[in-house]
Amino acid sequence: MVRSVTERASPGRHGCAGGRDILHTGPRVGGWHTARVTLPSARPPVPLEPLLALDARLDGVWAWVQTQMRPDAAHDDAHLLRVARWTLRCAPDVPPVLAVAAALSHDVVNLPKNHPQRAQASERSAQAVREALPGLGFTPDGVNEVALAVRDHSYSRGARPETPLGAALQDADRLDALGALGVLRVAGVGGQLGRALLDPLDPWAQAREPDDLAFTVDHFFTKLLRLDGTFLTAAGQVEARRRTRTMRAFLTELAAELEVEPPA
Amino acid sequence: MVRSVTERASPGRHGCAGGRDILHTGPRVGGWHTARVTLPSARPPVPLEPLLALDARLDGVWAWVQTQMRPDAAHDDAHLLRVARWTLRCAPDVPPVLAVAAALSHDVVNLPKNHPQRAQASERSAQAVREALPGLGFTPDGVNEVALAVRDHSYSRGARPETPLGAALQDADRLDALGALGVLRVAGVGGQLGRALLDPLDPWAQAREPDDLAFTVDHFFTKLLRLDGTFLTAAGQVEARRRTRTMRAFLTELAAELEVEPPA
Repeated sequence: MVRSVTERASPGRHGCAGGRDILHTGPRVGGWHTARVTLPSARPPVPLEPLLALDARLDGVWAWVQTQMRPDAAHDDAHLLRVARWTLRCAPDVPPVLAVAAALSHDVVNLPKNHPQRAQASERSAQAVREALPGLGFTPDGVNEVALAVRDHSYSRGARPETPLGAALQDADRLDALGALGVLRVAGVGGQLGRALLDPLDPWAQAREPDDLAFTVDHFFTKLLRLDGTFLTAAGQVEARRRTRTMRAFLTELAAELEVEPPA
Repeated sequence: MVRSVTERASPGRHGCAGGRDILHTGPRVGGWHTARVTLPSARPPVPLEPLLALDARLDGVWAWVQTQMRPDAAHDDAHLLRVARWTLRCAPDVPPVLAVAAALSHDVVNLPKNHPQRAQASERSAQAVREALPGLGFTPDGVNEVALAVRDHSYSRGARPETPLGAALQDADRLDALGALGVLRVAGVGGQLGRALLDPLDPWAQAREPDDLAFTVDHFFTKLLRLDGTFLTAAGQVEARRRTRTMRAFLTELAAELEVEPPA
């Protein structure tokens, strides 16, 4: 996994660190947003290096996560980097090194969706953080803050984080389950699990209990469309609303293709 | 698989056979279409039975396909039924029994995406049709017409069908790779194959060759966005254009989430 982000020529460690915030100025129609993005060049950004450049200790966190984590298509390096970016945004008053350290390590113990101990993965990740971060130059308070956030981030555990960093990490991780990324990730997990795409007789689970072990589309109704009300930070709430509109527009289009009415 | 479409109470074999065409009257904005659908009731349709009701021989075709086919999430019963509906629409002058028989049997030999003989699957399906359909009440001319269409439908084989039924089946199968359904199916196949979602450094494969064995999103550029110009029937061309707009809107939204410019 490291190779995929290090083997290319890049404009330099700090080359993309500034001026990349998306400007939400495009016309918004039907829940869709026409992106206007300011980029330093036409070349897509290098997402890892500007994050690691925030603090020298993050190199160690990244290297440690790479040796520990069992990645999958929905929880790969790119997911960690997107979560790191949004954790920074959702926790503007938290030291950036802690925000990035929490994001990079939040899935360090990653169990498959259908693993019986799935709900304990975040607690096991937090324990791993407590063991590893002291040796990587973090203070006891910093280790504790990161570990608490990692412990409480997960959806399946159902905890409400007690700290600003915890709230930011939970929001950032949930954002990555929404929108176009969320659609791709939920369908990819469906392929991994071998579940059917949808129930052709009742695609929105209106006359039955939704069952997201059986049908990929059911996961919109068991989780994805329910997330919008759970965000804790201002930045997370705004982006969650936008990405939820994206998913609803997607389901409306899917309904047209299936020739059924869209979900309520 | 048969159970999933037969075990429920249904409004009767002919209950949903008419009046279900989607009306494309909703406002269309940003490539997205707000669906307006007339349905006989709020209950979603039973997709199989009205199709089989077109001709008594189709029960036999369906039962045969069920015993032979190795389904996967992207090539399941629901896919066969969607392809059957669109084959009928794209071949208005072909006997409906042949259109549905071709659609139901087009993937009867289904090989995985990464199988070395993948490109021969449609020829092997056609051979299976030639062996099975004479015993199911089809005339030699009917068998031949179905087999030719099945042989030539596949994208990977690259044939241009010689008959109206062949053109209709190819269009119907390609339509199911596009739009919101196409997004879900390509991501699901990605999960099956264990490939990464996208290349975070170059998600639209602008500075490298697209590689859809490595990245799910690359498949938009190796195939999905290229299909629009390949449709052969009037109905297929119109719907392909609509579904391609859907995919482009999806990628625009994905770009906003990735904070890069959308693909050209």
